Amino acid sequence: MNAVRGVPRGRSKSQAVPSSIDGPDDLPRGSDGAYHGVNPPMAFKFSGTAAGIKRNGKSDVGLITSAHPCAFAAAYTANHLKAAPLLWNVAHLRSGVLQAVVANSGNANAATGSGGLRVCDAIAGAAAKILRLRKGTVALASTGVIGKPLPADRIIRALPRLARDLRTDGWKDFARAIMTTDTRPKISQKSLGHAGGPSILGIAKGAGMIGPHLLIPSRPHATMLAFIMTDARITSSALREALHSGLPGSFNAISVDGDMSTNDTVFVMASGASSRKVSRETFRKALHEVMGDLAMQIVRDGEGATKFVSIRVRGAGTVREAEIVARAIGQSPLVKTAIFGEDPNWGRILSAAGSTSVLLRPERTTLRIAGVLLFRRGRPAQASAIHTARRLMKNRDIGIHLDLGVGDESFTLATSDLSPGYVTVNAKYD
Amino acid sequence: MNAVRGVPRGRSKSQAVPSSIDGPDDLPRGSDGAYHGVNPPMAFKFSGTAAGIKRNGKSDVGLITSAHPCAFAAAYTANHLKAAPLLWNVAHLRSGVLQAVVANSGNANAATGSGGLRVCDAIAGAAAKILRLRKGTVALASTGVIGKPLPADRIIRALPRLARDLRTDGWKDFARAIMTTDTRPKISQKSLGHAGGPSILGIAKGAGMIGPHLLIPSRPHATMLAFIMTDARITSSALREALHSGLPGSFNAISVDGDMSTNDTVFVMASGASSRKVSRETFRKALHEVMGDLAMQIVRDGEGATKFVSIRVRGAGTVREAEIVARAIGQSPLVKTAIFGEDPNWGRILSAAGSTSVLLRPERTTLRIAGVLLFRRGRPAQASAIHTARRLMKNRDIGIHLDLGVGDESFTLATSDLSPGYVTVNAKYD
Repeated sequence: MNAVRGVPRGRSKSQAVPSSIDGPDDLPRGSDGAYHGVNPPMAFKFSGTAAGIKRNGKSDVGLITSAHPCAFAAAYTANHLKAAPLLWNVAHLRSGVLQAVVANSGNANAATGSGGLRVCDAIAGAAAKILRLRKGTVALASTGVIGKPLPADRIIRALPRLARDLRTDGWKDFARAIMTTDTRPKISQKSLGHAGGPSILGIAKGAGMIGPHLLIPSRPHATMLAFIMTDARITSSALREALHSGLPGSFNAISVDGDMSTNDTVFVMASGASSRKVSRETFRKALHEVMGDLAMQIVRDGEGATKFVSIRVRGAGTVREAEIVARAIGQSPLVKTAIFGEDPNWGRILSAAGSTSVLLRPERTTLRIAGVLLFRRGRPAQASAIHTARRLMKNRDIGIHLDLGVGDESFTLATSDLSPGYVTVNAKYD
Repeated sequence: MNAVRGVPRGRSKSQAVPSSIDGPDDLPRGSDGAYHGVNPPMAFKFSGTAAGIKRNGKSDVGLITSAHPCAFAAAYTANHLKAAPLLWNVAHLRSGVLQAVVANSGNANAATGSGGLRVCDAIAGAAAKILRLRKGTVALASTGVIGKPLPADRIIRALPRLARDLRTDGWKDFARAIMTTDTRPKISQKSLGHAGGPSILGIAKGAGMIGPHLLIPSRPHATMLAFIMTDARITSSALREALHSGLPGSFNAISVDGDMSTNDTVFVMASGASSRKVSRETFRKALHEVMGDLAMQIVRDGEGATKFVSIRVRGAGTVREAEIVARAIGQSPLVKTAIFGEDPNWGRILSAAGSTSVLLRPERTTLRIAGVLLFRRGRPAQASAIHTARRLMKNRDIGIHLDLGVGDESFTLATSDLSPGYVTVNAKYD
């Protein structure tokens, strides 16, 4: 099982690698910055178009279909204010089978009252009719402004075009259609086993309102839109288990602004079109890699982000306590602005770490920034260490490692800094 | 009991009203923007000077003394990383009597290891010697950068000057000496009863790292530095009760950035120099007004603040639930940037409100911004309401009123917006 990094795999003609690769700026990257060649899993097709929901005329509706009914699993936000498409999906996708997804950007269809649900029903019904599917096999997802009525008629008018444009290599069009403040599409792919075996393709969006808050660990939720397709043969229950076990280490371990969305959705769909057998463990591992990769791409494209920050808290009594401390650090405006300012301000990090319900004992606590020891068991490091750390803060990727010194549990949160760019994009966003 | 608003009260000569009032920019204001005339309570003197802790040469050490030993009460941050002066005070102020306070800005003396405590001991010892007091009656407070050794020698060298400069009307010098990113001093005063009766004078600082987080309601803590003096005759236990009962509605009900400080301290000192009797209830009420006034002044001077936002959550099952929801709204970067952008983005407010552990039922929820009904029991308001609210968002003071519709409890949080100014001041702060 290896990530495909620009190396086309053997495939049937209909599943061919996209014949041309756009310039570097246009290509999806992995969390390591490498470019991907993308081979979509068999049986899936994708399209995207501008339906007129975004005022700027950019692509705003996307369609995914499968040639076969798919086993599927879904995870939704833990926000009590759930957008209409989430409520609609929960109520209607009861057959355990999914065959199409209609997703739009530019409007979240959230807090829109009962009208929002009627709009969902109209869109799913129209898509089902055109695609000749049952309505309960069409899933919906939306992202964008909260509280404005979603103009269903524009999406319905765009559906024939979307159906006509469906292509095996249309993943890029779909990825663009779901972007909001994202500066680039987010794609991740892994092959399962050897050449010709099944694969997993993930497409995600998300740049702001990124703040999972896992209040109850057993109650998984996501933090953005992600659509993950595989042609592996796998049951819905196995998909569900693999999805849910992957959330704590991927979408639930990232934060841009700490704001939990009303629309966060992850779908995993398995067409079963590949004839090659794959073990459940192999699939789970690959799925988790794709989820982690997409999550990191979201943080790297965080609104206004100039830094990618990995906050590892270890030596905690429980994973939950490590998570609480990591989130307190990662959501502290003072820590985030210091990182933007390339200031190794360990005092703010310790202060944020000490502000939670989790007992912090300075005399047992050790902190490293960018690998440099700055605070060790109650004592600050020498000025020379600060100078070294300050130099290393100029890197784009910053590691913050805090050891609480009281236990064996850990949690890692990926986050971004807080720049004036974040403020301006969100003060003007509409 | 009335606030003194520019009206000098009758006083003995040594307690005279400051003879001149500086221009408007220089004057402390109340939360209503009115200017105060300030009559310090009897027996207290104040001074402030530049000891060379701040690099810019501004005033950075202040002294308060009382002619008599004072009954006192103190509240400290709930942060597990408590600065050295807090730890020192807890260990040394055991006599229940206080007669002087030495406070510095420019350095928090936090996370400085055992060296930080030795510095406290040296400063308190030097102050006690000069003032001819017992060391255990001198309290310490610091604010500024975390993690740098506090240069005790500079403070100790400044002490003779501070002692010589002590004046009844030196409150303004003291108020300036404790400022960090504050743009103005923060003073509040109330008289107790009629002319010639005792009074309360409060002096505070705070603009950033303002984020009380009352994890255990019975465990009070403060969020900034505040020094409150009275000449009323009142016992330490009555002071303690009055202080602690006032925290939830004042310093613990404000947030600028949600960052809980390592140094938050409130002292209340009663010299008992007034011969007029005041009831415990009268004192408590006046003290709470002074605390509330200082707290609002801190929010109004929040780092980068362009708006003063009052978030009232009512209809909650418990006060704690109302507080959780109010804090989620008031600490949401998306809500705060929208307010900076003068955008009545009710969707972000509802989304933040729905993101906590407190169940939010949209069909029971009602939201008003600037008095305009924008969401009523699951349904968004008409576009015309948005237009009205958008116009009212241009005001400096914005009210957000959320009714959860499930109970009778409420909580009000005062906060500020998030502007590019907040980011730049904290990316460069050093």
